[in-house]
Amino acid sequence: MYIQLTDQASVQDVRAELQGLGLWTRPMTGAAGAVIGLDVASHSMAVAQPTILAVPGVADVIDVPSAHPRVDAQWGEPIQVGDRSIGGGAPPVLISGPCSVESPAQIQAAAATAARAGASLLRGGAFKPRTSPYCFDGHGRQALGWLREAADAYGLGVVTEVMSELEVQAVAAHAELLQLGARNMQNYALLRAVGGARKPVLLKRGMSATVEEWLLSAEHLLKHGATGVIFCERGIAGGDPSTRYLLDLAAVALLKHVYGQPVIVDPSLATGRRDLVPAMARAALAAGADGLLVEAHPDARQARSDGPQALDSAALLALGDALGFRPAAPRPKHAPTEVAA
Amino acid sequence: MYIQLTDQASVQDVRAELQGLGLWTRPMTGAAGAVIGLDVASHSMAVAQPTILAVPGVADVIDVPSAHPRVDAQWGEPIQVGDRSIGGGAPPVLISGPCSVESPAQIQAAAATAARAGASLLRGGAFKPRTSPYCFDGHGRQALGWLREAADAYGLGVVTEVMSELEVQAVAAHAELLQLGARNMQNYALLRAVGGARKPVLLKRGMSATVEEWLLSAEHLLKHGATGVIFCERGIAGGDPSTRYLLDLAAVALLKHVYGQPVIVDPSLATGRRDLVPAMARAALAAGADGLLVEAHPDARQARSDGPQALDSAALLALGDALGFRPAAPRPKHAPTEVAA
Amino acid sequence: MYIQLTDQASVQDVRAELQGLGLWTRPMTGAAGAVIGLDVASHSMAVAQPTILAVPGVADVIDVPSAHPRVDAQWGEPIQVGDRSIGGGAPPVLISGPCSVESPAQIQAAAATAARAGASLLRGGAFKPRTSPYCFDGHGRQALGWLREAADAYGLGVVTEVMSELEVQAVAAHAELLQLGARNMQNYALLRAVGGARKPVLLKRGMSATVEEWLLSAEHLLKHGATGVIFCERGIAGGDPSTRYLLDLAAVALLKHVYGQPVIVDPSLATGRRDLVPAMARAALAAGADGLLVEAHPDARQARSDGPQALDSAALLALGDALGFRPAAPRPKHAPTEVAA
Amino acid sequence: MYIQLTDQASVQDVRAELQGLGLWTRPMTGAAGAVIGLDVASHSMAVAQPTILAVPGVADVIDVPSAHPRVDAQWGEPIQVGDRSIGGGAPPVLISGPCSVESPAQIQAAAATAARAGASLLRGGAFKPRTSPYCFDGHGRQALGWLREAADAYGLGVVTEVMSELEVQAVAAHAELLQLGARNMQNYALLRAVGGARKPVLLKRGMSATVEEWLLSAEHLLKHGATGVIFCERGIAGGDPSTRYLLDLAAVALLKHVYGQPVIVDPSLATGRRDLVPAMARAALAAGADGLLVEAHPDARQARSDGPQALDSAALLALGDALGFRPAAPRPKHAPTEVAA
Repeated sequence: MYIQLTDQASVQDVRAELQGLGLWTRPMTGAAGAVIGLDVASHSMAVAQPTILAVPGVADVIDVPSAHPRVDAQWGEPIQVGDRSIGGGAPPVLISGPCSVESPAQIQAAAATAARAGASLLRGGAFKPRTSPYCFDGHGRQALGWLREAADAYGLGVVTEVMSELEVQAVAAHAELLQLGARNMQNYALLRAVGGARKPVLLKRGMSATVEEWLLSAEHLLKHGATGVIFCERGIAGGDPSTRYLLDLAAVALLKHVYGQPVIVDPSLATGRRDLVPAMARAALAAGADGLLVEAHPDARQARSDGPQALDSAALLALGDALGFRPAAPRPKHAPTEVAA
Repeated sequence: MYIQLTDQASVQDVRAELQGLGLWTRPMTGAAGAVIGLDVASHSMAVAQPTILAVPGVADVIDVPSAHPRVDAQWGEPIQVGDRSIGGGAPPVLISGPCSVESPAQIQAAAATAARAGASLLRGGAFKPRTSPYCFDGHGRQALGWLREAADAYGLGVVTEVMSELEVQAVAAHAELLQLGARNMQNYALLRAVGGARKPVLLKRGMSATVEEWLLSAEHLLKHGATGVIFCERGIAGGDPSTRYLLDLAAVALLKHVYGQPVIVDPSLATGRRDLVPAMARAALAAGADGLLVEAHPDARQARSDGPQALDSAALLALGDALGFRPAAPRPKHAPTEVAA
Repeated sequence: MYIQLTDQASVQDVRAELQGLGLWTRPMTGAAGAVIGLDVASHSMAVAQPTILAVPGVADVIDVPSAHPRVDAQWGEPIQVGDRSIGGGAPPVLISGPCSVESPAQIQAAAATAARAGASLLRGGAFKPRTSPYCFDGHGRQALGWLREAADAYGLGVVTEVMSELEVQAVAAHAELLQLGARNMQNYALLRAVGGARKPVLLKRGMSATVEEWLLSAEHLLKHGATGVIFCERGIAGGDPSTRYLLDLAAVALLKHVYGQPVIVDPSLATGRRDLVPAMARAALAAGADGLLVEAHPDARQARSDGPQALDSAALLALGDALGFRPAAPRPKHAPTEVAA
Repeated sequence: MYIQLTDQASVQDVRAELQGLGLWTRPMTGAAGAVIGLDVASHSMAVAQPTILAVPGVADVIDVPSAHPRVDAQWGEPIQVGDRSIGGGAPPVLISGPCSVESPAQIQAAAATAARAGASLLRGGAFKPRTSPYCFDGHGRQALGWLREAADAYGLGVVTEVMSELEVQAVAAHAELLQLGARNMQNYALLRAVGGARKPVLLKRGMSATVEEWLLSAEHLLKHGATGVIFCERGIAGGDPSTRYLLDLAAVALLKHVYGQPVIVDPSLATGRRDLVPAMARAALAAGADGLLVEAHPDARQARSDGPQALDSAALLALGDALGFRPAAPRPKHAPTEVAA
């Protein structure tokens, strides 16, 4: 942002007033050598343009227009995910389930626990991005069916990742919310295809994406037809090996409180450490998150991916309870047997 | 960490059990080609050694010994700062005040507000690190006196930064808690000198320091005589210009819940944005912080450094109230007049 | 890497010998408390296992096996790209052309200059990844034809990016070398599809990818059928706004000299600054790069993407000459008219 | 940089011309909604102001004035280091020696080899910053004497690090060039004290410092009296464990070719890997470096710090020879016996 000064302005006085409003400024000189404007740092507080224009000595406020009008139009609005609302003042949601959908029994057990813990959506990967081509990468389409059945059995919605343009329809047929993974945040062919499914999308932040780049990827989705975008912070690449990724909760607060967007936090993937999940789940809600995505597995020992970061059933129930999540619906009469955790 | 397997161990079974405990493992082969051990990733959950040794098939747990025994000995202990305790189960503390001590009146007004907001320590820089040599860098020794007097007038302790070996004695004579800034986290000459003052130290994290490097700098302080080290997360260098730094609250949770250390968070400096300070203050406490360091200024317009991120008096009072901080002591009878905020 | 010591080993002596070999070690203790092995830091020099085993006191060398055997098998081998060889001792290649293929005339002019500058392959995007959905994203399939014709007119090969699973066949029909962009380095669906084209691939490094993650993405390609992978360093995300990305030439040297892989450097995209392209092109070759990918445009003023970083024709010719690239083939008799630069 | 447009300007035409000059621009709108100026990205090519002003449609070029006028005044000037010149068109210099000065014999041997390899300055630490307080941190003042004597015996200058305000005089009495380490780049008390010694300074880049912050630290030195500042790139903090740090050679090219500053590269510390030192040394010179700082040790096995990255004598001689460095002076008649490498 560039603030143009009037000819009579006292640079010092204008800067003082703007500082009082929360703006970081630096004087800028024209070719003739005199100070004629101010540069405003991008980490300044968001202040309404009329407030700045009202400062004596300010001639104009000149800025780069928003490049994501469709995202901006989501301001403060809840996103409809099936018959649930996320964001926009709705109470926070809990999304839980295993990293991968491994079998009907496993996902049924996960769904049962998720429901008891107060979750409203069930997560689980049918298609898994794996760094190594020799790792288990999901059971594919059949797992979508298992996931849907398990969710239905417990009155939950479904969110699951789509990795391929060729699978968008299949995933959209089984899930209320389509997840775009961090590694695909700037996979524009996939953004286009997923947008075309005309559903809400959970957009994970890329591992080195700025907030602006993240918003722009959401704009791609909305432009191509997505009915809403929910942002998911899952940790970015950092330099400290003591956590798996670096959870950026200020980005969450920024999205929520300044950009008015719905935002979910994944403390499991972000830290990779079961011992930090509860603390970071609490911190995420305190920062303003509209929900949590917590990995849990009925038997983490047998998990085929990311088991070390999954909570067991008891830990998930304890966490849900501590955070005030409550089961939303009566449990079905003939609930499948749970696998002991 | 390296886990040595017994000759009879089933690699798959041992890995499953360790995964169940929260450990990320990879098989390791010896020169003869067979898998004989497991590499454990550093972002694994902290698990007690006997628990790992009890897993069938584990022959030994081999690790690099801690390089910071004096820090480890602080585990769970509160740090005495004057007649107050920080960390170790004590209630969180609020530390507030302006970036720079600018005048006796300014710091008196700041102290009055800090006390009313429930702060127990007053902060304010007498010596300021400034990126440019042409910026105001503090009023030096005389400001130490102003700071002490203001704190005393309101029953507060003092924390202030020391930047020079030549000023350690002067600062130590005026402050209960000596602050070491991020830019000096690995200034070993200063760590030695500050340790020699035999006082507690508030150690800010370096802008690209890992948690391990941070712990090692604390070890320098303790080895040279510091009576305790309180860690302060103030944001690290990040790639996103929409916040000033990148606040790493998982590092706070790690220090608190895994390393048992006292830790404070500075949401003002971390974000640079007044509009994110309340959310990140809440999130910090939720992550486990033992206190907050919040910049406030009686008149942010006139602040000579970092004014845009300072809360005004009303905002500080509202934040202190919302977070449950309460004035600890009766206000003095003849309190100096407050500057209107 | 973990080095197991013999019972009689002098830890100090073994560490000294290994230090002499270029290994960073730290003593590791077993549960009983004694030092029984050494941790070797991953930034140690690569040393052959027998050399380490020959150090007196070393009982075994225990390591995580390579997760990318197909990449390892490329060690020192040139990759066949049409009738040209890249890497493996072949002279460095120059790849040049515009960011986007904008018209037949533009790409013909670019091809003419590239050929005169000593390039052997022509680059140009038919499908362009764009951060904003409102920017020009390429002329698509028709541009593939223009690109191929221009390359053929000047005896050049073609390298161009494929962004969608649905376009792999079209791209493979027009290009000797398929480019996978940084944003798609971990787009596993696309890696699979591109591998299936059974052609060589130019794999750009993801913006926050480690070298190991990069090698693993190459392994995906090779496993799915790619006939060879050439790595392309194009800068990673950094924190300094004075260059567009952060060019990591040590990763280039590591890939080339330690992993024996073919590697290309893109100094244009990495720096974003025309004034740094020649210096970084020279540095890349000095570090061991097997070639350069240099953006050039017959009229940078009219470029529809990334014009500011494109060299004009004169600058490209001067750079090619200075670096010793020479036109490989006689120019065709009826060369299209060049657009003046 | 903000470019103000004339009322009649065609935004598209002006942007095209500026793109042709190497500038990345974005249209900016005033409060009234019309485009009235352009934002210029900081990674744009450096273009002289009159060139921009001459573009039809440009009304003014508005920028933040340089915050480091004393550094700017060094533009293109060689720095006098004793009787040698560094930068400003002088041939590149080789600086070599061990990480730590360990004994008179060790540093004499190192000096002998450095001289034979074509070095003009001898390096070696008397005071060593160490992450752990339990590591060898140098022999202190006595080592300064050993270093000086060894350098004198072989006609070399001395560069060595100063870590404490209390040691500036001692170091300045023994060295032509005072080194400020990466961890102290923003230790402003030390910058002031070192500047006060009125000598040239070798300023290493902080581990997460931007180029602008680096220039500002140099400004501190010059303001306080330093006779010249030579910049030293030694790698910044990165996320890839396969090299010790991340060597940013584009920053070297930027300092040299755009800012006109003298700049040295330390490939040993940057990579930590002996196997990458020669390639990165070559690349550094190709990028424009005015010299190299290469760690070498007569017997790396016995090095008390950073031995794994030190070249042995044969490797240093080979590297000096390959890079064209030549012994500058006749060796003394009674040279001390070299320690075999």
